[in-house]
Amino acid sequence: MTDFSKTKAMFHLPEGVIYLDGNSLGPMPKAASARVARTIEAEWGEMLITGWNKAGWMEQPTKIGNRIARLIGAEPGTVVMGDTLSIKVYQALASALEMNPTRRVILSDTGNFPSDLYMADGLVRTLGHGYSLKTVAPEEVEAAIDETLAVTMITEVDYRTGRKHDMKALTAKAHAVGAIAVWDLAHSAGAVPVDLAGCNVDFAVGCTYKYLNSGPGGPAFIYVAPRHAETARPALSGWLGHEAPFAFDLAYRPGRGIERMRVGTPPVLQLAALEASMDIWDMAEMADVRAKSIALTDLFIALIERSCPSLTLASPRDGNGRGSQISFRHAEGYAIMQALIAHGVIGDFRAPDILRFGFTPLYIDEGDVRAAAAIIAEVMGKALWDRPEYKVRARVT
Amino acid sequence: MTDFSKTKAMFHLPEGVIYLDGNSLGPMPKAASARVARTIEAEWGEMLITGWNKAGWMEQPTKIGNRIARLIGAEPGTVVMGDTLSIKVYQALASALEMNPTRRVILSDTGNFPSDLYMADGLVRTLGHGYSLKTVAPEEVEAAIDETLAVTMITEVDYRTGRKHDMKALTAKAHAVGAIAVWDLAHSAGAVPVDLAGCNVDFAVGCTYKYLNSGPGGPAFIYVAPRHAETARPALSGWLGHEAPFAFDLAYRPGRGIERMRVGTPPVLQLAALEASMDIWDMAEMADVRAKSIALTDLFIALIERSCPSLTLASPRDGNGRGSQISFRHAEGYAIMQALIAHGVIGDFRAPDILRFGFTPLYIDEGDVRAAAAIIAEVMGKALWDRPEYKVRARVT
Repeated sequence: MTDFSKTKAMFHLPEGVIYLDGNSLGPMPKAASARVARTIEAEWGEMLITGWNKAGWMEQPTKIGNRIARLIGAEPGTVVMGDTLSIKVYQALASALEMNPTRRVILSDTGNFPSDLYMADGLVRTLGHGYSLKTVAPEEVEAAIDETLAVTMITEVDYRTGRKHDMKALTAKAHAVGAIAVWDLAHSAGAVPVDLAGCNVDFAVGCTYKYLNSGPGGPAFIYVAPRHAETARPALSGWLGHEAPFAFDLAYRPGRGIERMRVGTPPVLQLAALEASMDIWDMAEMADVRAKSIALTDLFIALIERSCPSLTLASPRDGNGRGSQISFRHAEGYAIMQALIAHGVIGDFRAPDILRFGFTPLYIDEGDVRAAAAIIAEVMGKALWDRPEYKVRARVT
Repeated sequence: MTDFSKTKAMFHLPEGVIYLDGNSLGPMPKAASARVARTIEAEWGEMLITGWNKAGWMEQPTKIGNRIARLIGAEPGTVVMGDTLSIKVYQALASALEMNPTRRVILSDTGNFPSDLYMADGLVRTLGHGYSLKTVAPEEVEAAIDETLAVTMITEVDYRTGRKHDMKALTAKAHAVGAIAVWDLAHSAGAVPVDLAGCNVDFAVGCTYKYLNSGPGGPAFIYVAPRHAETARPALSGWLGHEAPFAFDLAYRPGRGIERMRVGTPPVLQLAALEASMDIWDMAEMADVRAKSIALTDLFIALIERSCPSLTLASPRDGNGRGSQISFRHAEGYAIMQALIAHGVIGDFRAPDILRFGFTPLYIDEGDVRAAAAIIAEVMGKALWDRPEYKVRARVT
């Protein structure tokens, strides 16, 4: 059993704040600063260039990839860290399209995070010649999977509503019609149990600064199924994905297995911060995390619906149908979220009208949920959000 | 005048080491660790998600871009940080090719860093339909620039020999034949004065972990000439390059100017480390750096050629024709470099036979050069490299 009092004690949570935004940027593991300082001072400072060997920087991306693999049901040696999620989306899509050369359509849905759609759009424009991105409403995805598709690109958990797609069923349907299944785990990794191997997924990508608490700008990851690992061709063919990077050959030869999905120099400092978080994640079982997440989110829905009738639930009511967040709609959502932040409950706002609250069992417990619900009830009951200062929009919200 | 004793004092240089490898990984600015710790503890730890606004994380990539712009002769607002150099090469090439749609050939040379060639290869494969990468010997580049070319992709300073291309002449020739000029400044930024605006360059890219001392895995940068800034289409169209990232539109619209070349979430911790280095760079003038660099490299050549006849100069003898490194050839280069490192002179080895030494005026002075040359003379004179332990190759060299 995961000891959540122990994991909670390993995070720094500022006084006077209930942090329900770990689905946007996870909080700082207490060990992160010392871990990064060690990398800077004892490794970079003292080892200089020799740190690539001596400190193991070159192996960080696959070592950490293996620790994340356990959380997403991936086989050892199938996950590697690097770049940003947008880049990894492009990389996975490009490889998947090349594996299915007689077809030219990518299917996604309008609930997907826009950057995935933008990257797909950039890729199909670069490919030209009939390649296209087709988007349907989330509830129409299953029906839209047909033999015209080269690739399905689906984000498992909707960033606004938390609605969760059925990875196993959609992947099976994609395969039945001869399409390749690419999954985005941005709101899944560390949020819900994922079983990439069991679902027979082809490619998956995700980020680490949300539930995996790697800090602002932490690196992304990519998964390639073992059956594709030696054949998938990386379109972003960088030197660290080469079979022998330090041979400095003029011709590209893809590296062994998942190594070929590396591109450039790994972000060693960001990876060190992620390691501090993975030390905590290593103490957790996803089944325990999921059970506590459903209990916390069910409780939150019940408390808010009882006290705040003007907030409309935007997330699935059934815990099995959602990720680890709860969203409510309100036309004044932006101002309400600003007021909540001013009163010590941090969630976030997603245009046009979504108030989003993330529940992260490693450091959020029942007491936090009850305290947050009481503050939300007060802000809503007294209309404390109805002040001009809460309505001025900042660039990043 | 740049006060180099002051800049040298701002770097941590380990005892007993003469570091002639700042062209591979720059050393740690003394302020880097505290700067990153502040970002982790006071910003990430205390501000959590609000750090994107409050701590200015979202503006870091353009703010730092402007500080680098001064060092490379770029106009304000034309440089932005992010990703790795390989990704930025792909991004610049893809935009450049799209601007020249009737032509399909990229020209580069065999002295280019292999990752640039690999990325170009991946891009032309993705584009298909007649796109190709043509590589010629470095000395044949000028003659090979003709009206068949869409884009020239040239690295100004050769990573092995230090040979420096004539940016102004080659860019002018590219333009004269109707090609777009993309330059890689990996061994130029912070090494030699670059005048992107004066040379009329179209796109440039570079990295920061070499002469710009951002630490292992520090982010890359990209430059787009002002005349292209509102028309260049980013193939890697990520959400932070969108005109309004937080509107979460389903359709991509490129952001204003250089902002469109952003892709995903910026690496905030790596950027903080880079800021510590830029505080030192802000005290330096590139003309002073260049004058000292030529003096140090001329001295090094003279000392080594006098004492080590078995080492053959691989760099241009004329200071104006090279970057800020000196390379020598020797069939036993690998073992020699291992022996030098064991004796306190860190340079690096580049296959098949190059011993490479970087000269970085911010923290290397005449005393260091004389001391290093004396150690090299001893290692060569007594054949101290001829031991089995120096011949075992590590993965990263």
